[in-house]
Amino acid sequence: MTHHGEVFKSLREHLHKTSLVSSAAELLGWDERTGMPAGAGEYRAEQVAYLSGLVHDMRTSPDIESWLDQLSDWSQASDTHSDIGATVRLVRKDYEKQKRLPKDLVEAIASATVRGQGRWDAARKADDYRQFQPALDEMISLQRQAGECLAAGGQTTYEALLDQYEPDAKADQLTSVFANLRGELVKLLDEIKGSSRQVDETLLKKKYPVDAQRKLSHKLAEAIGFDFNRGRLDETSHPFCTSLGPSDCRILTRYDDAWLPGSIFGTLHEAGHGIYEQGLPQDWYGLPPGTYASLGIHESQSRLWENLVGRSLEFWQCFTPLMKDTFDEDATAQQWHASFNRVTPSLIRVEADEATYNLHIIVRFELEQALIGGELSTDDLPSVWNERYANVLGVTPPSDANGVLQDVHWSAGLFGYFPTYTLGNLIAAQLYATAQSSLGDLSGMISRGEFEPLLNWLRENVHNLGRKYSADELVQNATGRALSAEPLVASLRERYSLVYDVESSASPCTSSL
Amino acid sequence: MTHHGEVFKSLREHLHKTSLVSSAAELLGWDERTGMPAGAGEYRAEQVAYLSGLVHDMRTSPDIESWLDQLSDWSQASDTHSDIGATVRLVRKDYEKQKRLPKDLVEAIASATVRGQGRWDAARKADDYRQFQPALDEMISLQRQAGECLAAGGQTTYEALLDQYEPDAKADQLTSVFANLRGELVKLLDEIKGSSRQVDETLLKKKYPVDAQRKLSHKLAEAIGFDFNRGRLDETSHPFCTSLGPSDCRILTRYDDAWLPGSIFGTLHEAGHGIYEQGLPQDWYGLPPGTYASLGIHESQSRLWENLVGRSLEFWQCFTPLMKDTFDEDATAQQWHASFNRVTPSLIRVEADEATYNLHIIVRFELEQALIGGELSTDDLPSVWNERYANVLGVTPPSDANGVLQDVHWSAGLFGYFPTYTLGNLIAAQLYATAQSSLGDLSGMISRGEFEPLLNWLRENVHNLGRKYSADELVQNATGRALSAEPLVASLRERYSLVYDVESSASPCTSSL
Repeated sequence: MTHHGEVFKSLREHLHKTSLVSSAAELLGWDERTGMPAGAGEYRAEQVAYLSGLVHDMRTSPDIESWLDQLSDWSQASDTHSDIGATVRLVRKDYEKQKRLPKDLVEAIASATVRGQGRWDAARKADDYRQFQPALDEMISLQRQAGECLAAGGQTTYEALLDQYEPDAKADQLTSVFANLRGELVKLLDEIKGSSRQVDETLLKKKYPVDAQRKLSHKLAEAIGFDFNRGRLDETSHPFCTSLGPSDCRILTRYDDAWLPGSIFGTLHEAGHGIYEQGLPQDWYGLPPGTYASLGIHESQSRLWENLVGRSLEFWQCFTPLMKDTFDEDATAQQWHASFNRVTPSLIRVEADEATYNLHIIVRFELEQALIGGELSTDDLPSVWNERYANVLGVTPPSDANGVLQDVHWSAGLFGYFPTYTLGNLIAAQLYATAQSSLGDLSGMISRGEFEPLLNWLRENVHNLGRKYSADELVQNATGRALSAEPLVASLRERYSLVYDVESSASPCTSSL
Repeated sequence: MTHHGEVFKSLREHLHKTSLVSSAAELLGWDERTGMPAGAGEYRAEQVAYLSGLVHDMRTSPDIESWLDQLSDWSQASDTHSDIGATVRLVRKDYEKQKRLPKDLVEAIASATVRGQGRWDAARKADDYRQFQPALDEMISLQRQAGECLAAGGQTTYEALLDQYEPDAKADQLTSVFANLRGELVKLLDEIKGSSRQVDETLLKKKYPVDAQRKLSHKLAEAIGFDFNRGRLDETSHPFCTSLGPSDCRILTRYDDAWLPGSIFGTLHEAGHGIYEQGLPQDWYGLPPGTYASLGIHESQSRLWENLVGRSLEFWQCFTPLMKDTFDEDATAQQWHASFNRVTPSLIRVEADEATYNLHIIVRFELEQALIGGELSTDDLPSVWNERYANVLGVTPPSDANGVLQDVHWSAGLFGYFPTYTLGNLIAAQLYATAQSSLGDLSGMISRGEFEPLLNWLRENVHNLGRKYSADELVQNATGRALSAEPLVASLRERYSLVYDVESSASPCTSSL
């Protein structure tokens, strides 16, 4: 082996060992959220903190810098989108980011996060924003400092924060695409509100036994391609997906006998995340070629299966017999489809339908930029929040608990995280539209339960590429164009036109989005 | 804080951190045996090996030796049974043991263990002892080397191996107590075989739905004192108990609708282990005062709840109404009791009843001493095994798969482990007899479901003491005399006399045991 080859091997082994520890820490987290006894929380926090400290030490080891320096003139790393080239490039990027953050700031943020979440939780329960405000002020100040340290290559402070979740994303570009989307969604929502057809809620209001929902969830996850030999589906109060190794993806959903869509779409969503994780190159687990591209891309995979596939009429044509077997319910595919596409503007993001969900996100995206940029003070935040909700969604929170206090994110220091949700929705629709053109009769395939062609298309165009391309590059390469709001709006219009009196395609003035 | 105090604090913190990592490794093991996806095994082995390596490095850190040296003249450590004194004494003992084992021998054993278990598994499936014999030879040779390295203070090679599981145990003393026990059990078994009363198998042959068994198991574990706020009960193929922290004890049982005693006594057994773990001083978790005394003591706690309590007539007087509620089964307490005390000599240790179980162990104890001592060759092992079974248990294995190949232990290098099972049975009976004298009407308490007095007695005399006393010292202190076979024989006779035509107390010539 050449000297460069040896050095790369050392780097790779070091990162492999780092993943062995970080994935063990993931298991501690998974277990905490699934079955850990209540009394075990304090010690578990110590375990997680200690392993996280080990991981941090390994990720900031000076050996890494030395190896990277020795690899800087390696011809095999010159193609920065090859496995080796992307590894060298992105490990250096991550390493330098870590180094730019002073250790005392990292510790201050960690400690403020624990405190902040505690304050947020108490304030939300007491419905008293003022209890939370000092912790929020502290967190904004710390995040601003972090963003200033991290900003590189002309990034704004906010973009530097965003870069942690959505590498290389540009705030201006998001603002522009989101503005188009907002205009279109508001129009769509008006049409739905004025529609003479409305969704019959009978099916949604029935009770469905949890045991039967559990069996259905397993069958649906397996049908769309989640591999149970390399993963599990469990139960929790806040659904999520985590990987504990290259062949150990855990997805979690929740069951409520009074709310069937919760488990079905929770499962399809998490299975979408899981299918992505299961499609990342296993040999590169824990290294850039085996890591997800961005949170937006991750979310695109969950939303694609949840909404583009799972809320389509064809999907319910395929699974109506299974619903009959499972629940002894005689509804038609059209009835299931309509029920699962009901639109009702509400106050709470996590309960929102597809027509309104992104409006919740856009409000947050605008407000968090203003908070980090210093244009909005936390004094004014609750009233500005309420105004925006009234303007954008047409609903006004009766109290801060259902308003500005509803999400945990800011209390946990997650500024720049919200936009990845909407990015996920946009990317999902754009990828799906391209897959549709490329695969021919995708609707027919779905109605017959043939999910493999779509899965293979995603494997090739998204999953197998890991983190070698940024989200922007990946979308451009896979779909032949830059990210746009058009495919999402088009897909929503097409789907909602089956249920409400809305135009099935966007009006001419928006086709240039 | 004094210099000694500071040094002790450093030692304690180091051991605390070591436990944070070792308990995370325990979670990896628990998860592997409960829900890990099949495809995840290879990476899981790497995770466990890496964390185990970290733990090994921490346990053999030269810092420990330096701290211990600095503490050697500390007055607060002079009482070797105080928390501090026992910590200093036992950490030194463990450290020196680790140091006496050459690293290449440790690695050779680790590698031979993986290979040996593989060979054993294949040989057992093929029912071909000769396939396993070379691996067994290699393991015996390695264990002999390990024993020679570890032997200290006049220990034989075998005792040095035994010391890993049963610190300070003397082979001669075990041989003598076991010989008494063997004589008594063979006599008891003859009486049972010749008994005109035999157990009606109707209740044992019925099917009991697994869901109902699961609920029953939870109720029984909770009733006897297993704290579900600090533990869980799960399902697995090979029941076990593991602690993932001072307040996180996981016990596992198995359910078979055709074998009710499997779940009931599996649960009571593991709950007994779990109750012990939950009673160890939490502040000293991972240090000698917060660690179990020996495997024999651990097993005594499982056997006490499983057999002395769980197989008593009073226990079934208490729980017959629950059995009726759970299984809609009208059996009387006497019928349940008789069913759960049926005796049938069999070939397989793990399926053995109480009258024969220890005979299985005694055969293994004798044979493994001869193997390590070189008096028995692996060529002769299968035939000697079969002879002993014919002699001692009156049954002859039809094949090695049900004979010498039935247990995994030797293939995994566990020489000196088997006797701890019988020690557990002996200690359980001796502790129970003392608790009975001390608490007064213990039978009455059990029949009323009052388990707390017994639990508190065990907390005080066993659990709260951790590892500060050896098993011998602990038994002597708690019961006022050295370990003897008499209490176990007496309790078996008393219990079996309710079911079979056996004398309810031992004959005079054995009362001096």
